[in-house]
Amino acid sequence: MPNKKDVSTAVVHRLARYYRCLLDMKNRGVGRVSSKILAEVMGLTASQIRQDLNCFGGFGQQGYGYNVDNLIHEIAVILNLDKGHTAVVVGAGNLGHALLNNFNFARAGVRVAGAFDTDPKLIGTVVGGVTIRAIGELEPFVQSYRPDIAVLTLPRIHAVPVAELLCQAGIRGFWNFTSADLSLPSITVPVENVHFSESLMTLSYRL
Amino acid sequence: MPNKKDVSTAVVHRLARYYRCLLDMKNRGVGRVSSKILAEVMGLTASQIRQDLNCFGGFGQQGYGYNVDNLIHEIAVILNLDKGHTAVVVGAGNLGHALLNNFNFARAGVRVAGAFDTDPKLIGTVVGGVTIRAIGELEPFVQSYRPDIAVLTLPRIHAVPVAELLCQAGIRGFWNFTSADLSLPSITVPVENVHFSESLMTLSYRL
Repeated sequence: MPNKKDVSTAVVHRLARYYRCLLDMKNRGVGRVSSKILAEVMGLTASQIRQDLNCFGGFGQQGYGYNVDNLIHEIAVILNLDKGHTAVVVGAGNLGHALLNNFNFARAGVRVAGAFDTDPKLIGTVVGGVTIRAIGELEPFVQSYRPDIAVLTLPRIHAVPVAELLCQAGIRGFWNFTSADLSLPSITVPVENVHFSESLMTLSYRL
Repeated sequence: MPNKKDVSTAVVHRLARYYRCLLDMKNRGVGRVSSKILAEVMGLTASQIRQDLNCFGGFGQQGYGYNVDNLIHEIAVILNLDKGHTAVVVGAGNLGHALLNNFNFARAGVRVAGAFDTDPKLIGTVVGGVTIRAIGELEPFVQSYRPDIAVLTLPRIHAVPVAELLCQAGIRGFWNFTSADLSLPSITVPVENVHFSESLMTLSYRL
């Protein structure tokens, strides 16, 4: 397997897409799949798929294709989905609620360890099985329980100071739903930004 | 300018990223930018950027770089952001609320013409300046006002029948936040899926 730094972001994004498609196939009872079929489902070419999976040693056999279960397992290992990552949700407004209630964190191998908000009406309520705590408890919580990921669903204006505090407290990465730019010297861990607008602009192009 | 079909999805995604970065630069008072600087900001190579923009004829001048305002305008035209697209938000639960209250539709050139839900407690309330209407009004609304885009923020189980109904009523594209698969023969317009899990898995890889 190559060094992680050698793999482009585009390949990692496609691995995540393969993973999702393969889970859907598994749920439909599909046991093995050719690169040709996987290519059709994903709107890619078969050679692109073979090339991507070869980055990591390749897992297919000529004339057989890929064993769906094996490939799911191998991609999960590559993407660290088997590491038992934990997350805190910072901001339990509408977006935080939507994620806590409806997003399948477990499918990405992540367990939500806590959620935090400033609103006294929310504190103490349970959303998606997680109790909302006061924002003042966030820093000691992170120091004690060492969650890996902070999901930033708080108002944009608070994103930078809260992210800096969490970095100091030992968080390992940010899943950033705010439009705040966290590419700062004080933010020393990976940030994955969710940019809704890029997705809408892509649709606009295709209309 | 090449035929739209000739441009890969990856290039369109990057154009949307260029657009966002350039707007941020403009807001910081930057008037022109070299492909080298744009590359650094975006984590790409300068030659990648020149190649992408050359797909559409290129807009830079050697030794000067790109005029930020011009490039914003040209990308907006390519992405159809200047077409005055309108949208309806279908489902005004937590996610619909979050988008109506916080997402900058205007930045993507889109105006929200209406929002719809089944919950009697929500119908008639105003969220982000948009009145929530009963779901029963959706079909006649689409037939009368001809919005371009349906934002699907309703429960997953309702996504397919509602999308089929909207296709019949004349909608031109779907921005799909549900995890429902809309790649069906009955869905005859473009679908842009928002897959949160792929983004979280990418972060997991980088931890």
